[in-house]
Amino acid sequence: MPRMTAPARVLGVALSARWEGVGEPFTLVESPLPETLEPGEVLVEIELATVCGSDLHTVTGGRPAPSPGVLGHEQVGRVVAVGPGETPRCLDSTPVAPGLRVVWSVAASCLRCARCLAGMPQKCLHLRKYGHEAWDDERPLRGGFATHCLLMPGTAIAAVDESLPAEVAAPVSCATATVAAVVGAADPVGDGTRALVNGAGMLGLTAVAMLSAAGAHVVAVDPHPLRREQALAFGASEAEPAGRPVGEVDVALELSGATGAVQSCLDSLAVGGVAVLAGSVSPGPAVQLDPERLVRGLHRIVGVHNYHPRDLLTAVEFMTEHHRTRPFADLVAGRYGLTELDAAFAAARRGDAPRRAIAP
Amino acid sequence: MPRMTAPARVLGVALSARWEGVGEPFTLVESPLPETLEPGEVLVEIELATVCGSDLHTVTGGRPAPSPGVLGHEQVGRVVAVGPGETPRCLDSTPVAPGLRVVWSVAASCLRCARCLAGMPQKCLHLRKYGHEAWDDERPLRGGFATHCLLMPGTAIAAVDESLPAEVAAPVSCATATVAAVVGAADPVGDGTRALVNGAGMLGLTAVAMLSAAGAHVVAVDPHPLRREQALAFGASEAEPAGRPVGEVDVALELSGATGAVQSCLDSLAVGGVAVLAGSVSPGPAVQLDPERLVRGLHRIVGVHNYHPRDLLTAVEFMTEHHRTRPFADLVAGRYGLTELDAAFAAARRGDAPRRAIAP
Repeated sequence: MPRMTAPARVLGVALSARWEGVGEPFTLVESPLPETLEPGEVLVEIELATVCGSDLHTVTGGRPAPSPGVLGHEQVGRVVAVGPGETPRCLDSTPVAPGLRVVWSVAASCLRCARCLAGMPQKCLHLRKYGHEAWDDERPLRGGFATHCLLMPGTAIAAVDESLPAEVAAPVSCATATVAAVVGAADPVGDGTRALVNGAGMLGLTAVAMLSAAGAHVVAVDPHPLRREQALAFGASEAEPAGRPVGEVDVALELSGATGAVQSCLDSLAVGGVAVLAGSVSPGPAVQLDPERLVRGLHRIVGVHNYHPRDLLTAVEFMTEHHRTRPFADLVAGRYGLTELDAAFAAARRGDAPRRAIAP
Repeated sequence: MPRMTAPARVLGVALSARWEGVGEPFTLVESPLPETLEPGEVLVEIELATVCGSDLHTVTGGRPAPSPGVLGHEQVGRVVAVGPGETPRCLDSTPVAPGLRVVWSVAASCLRCARCLAGMPQKCLHLRKYGHEAWDDERPLRGGFATHCLLMPGTAIAAVDESLPAEVAAPVSCATATVAAVVGAADPVGDGTRALVNGAGMLGLTAVAMLSAAGAHVVAVDPHPLRREQALAFGASEAEPAGRPVGEVDVALELSGATGAVQSCLDSLAVGGVAVLAGSVSPGPAVQLDPERLVRGLHRIVGVHNYHPRDLLTAVEFMTEHHRTRPFADLVAGRYGLTELDAAFAAARRGDAPRRAIAP
């Protein structure tokens, strides 16, 4: 039953590691917690955040973003306060209440525009993305690299079991949920499915784990020997450097963004095969598509960007069940405080681990 | 309940308009009807057949095919005899019995190979296509341009209402069922869907009718003024010559096979849009695919070739309901006997009507 609550009153301050622009160091900024929440808002205290590849692109200027602002959109936290009115629900219907441990979507949707009504809240015409909003003195807490985040109405929220390590839970908000969308778009995947995964970073390794858990024979392709080793640890049957022929596959997932890898996905499809592209989020050269081969092969090519709320739930469920089976926790290296973001980003750029952890 | 029958015994002869090879005239050939049928075989007396574009490609050498043989794979007929053993069923479960008026799939599938078991009987590893088999003295009746056709086990059969004109029923076997597959792959289509149909021949006009019946706003594109006029009569809201920008669409169907039209389908997709390609069945130049646009747009590109048995049923149901609403019967011009196939093909090549009828 929906529960009506009085407007939440919160006292205290938040700390944010504020991004000041390309080439600038992060600065620690104090701001008051909002005295009252609006209906649908949820205030969360952040337990742990992780630095995603797109945060790195933002700070180097490769991904246009307003500054100053609070970056970070992969995090796990605990609900501090809930706005007045009807109690928000988690995706599994759990009421959102103080004390609940949660992850949330990378974006908030209006749920009223044509795209939302067409079943694409991830492409909402009024989409607002965490870790990607301009600093607003009234409501500055819109990213993961802070002590608190103020969730906007239209954010998908998922309850997270206390047993899930924070390092495993934080990337669920972005990496794991995106991979759930990608693997979902490749449906059906099952015993005997032959799958290609191009790129064995955070997303690729997660994809390898999901596909192999579903019974697929997975060929992972990555130029880096360490990543190929990791792919085998995550359940790949084969791990190959880029550029070698991989044979025909039923499912080809593209998570690297490299043009040659996209072409290889299209060119590797067996009859009835599906290629799901998600890595190509920057401008790049076109690839060649042979229409006759696509037609006669009953091929499908599918683009995935952001993800649907249901994918976040799938991601939480997958990670809850499988985080011990594969070395997910090892993908997150180091623990940095909010004053150490410059060091965390420098370490992340070295690329020896897919993620760095920020513990406020 | 399955019914066991004694082996059917048939007396009499069949006449075929046999194709002797590229550049050769058709010859009328008499052959005895099979004395006994094998289990799963169904002998049909042909009421009317139509000349499909791929028959034209075959006789001009544009589509490799064995010769001699009986061409034709769009036809309606009446069951004469059924092989022994379990009674075959139509797609709607009607038992196949002498006297039943039927259409059937363009191909027969083994229903046992890996592709059939994976739900792709239309890409069966042992696929046999009507109107595309070498003449076999034991079993020559494998095409529509004859008095009879002997259906192979693994053929999808659909009962056809007596009220459906033969000119409307015959193309269901190929054109209408293929379009049902194409429109099905573009799901969902409904009120407010903005759709592009490239090519307004037999398939394109049928697609226009199906999409507009589902409530879509349809833009038909074809270089020929007559076809654009026909597209409007079949329910298109707009009809444009090729090469003009058509704006963003949710659904883009490619039924012409022209490279520029394929490119236009990919380039016209709105966010969440799907392009279904079916016209490209001959080798041709590649098109350019922008991976970032596909990813950020959540686009889907789907190839359709042959069709699934369920599409034949959808096609029969659509035509039964809508054949009076749109001028389908006008698309089939003339009636030629089995001795007049050369004249029928010459008329078909002139292209002033999408189909020519052969009445044995």
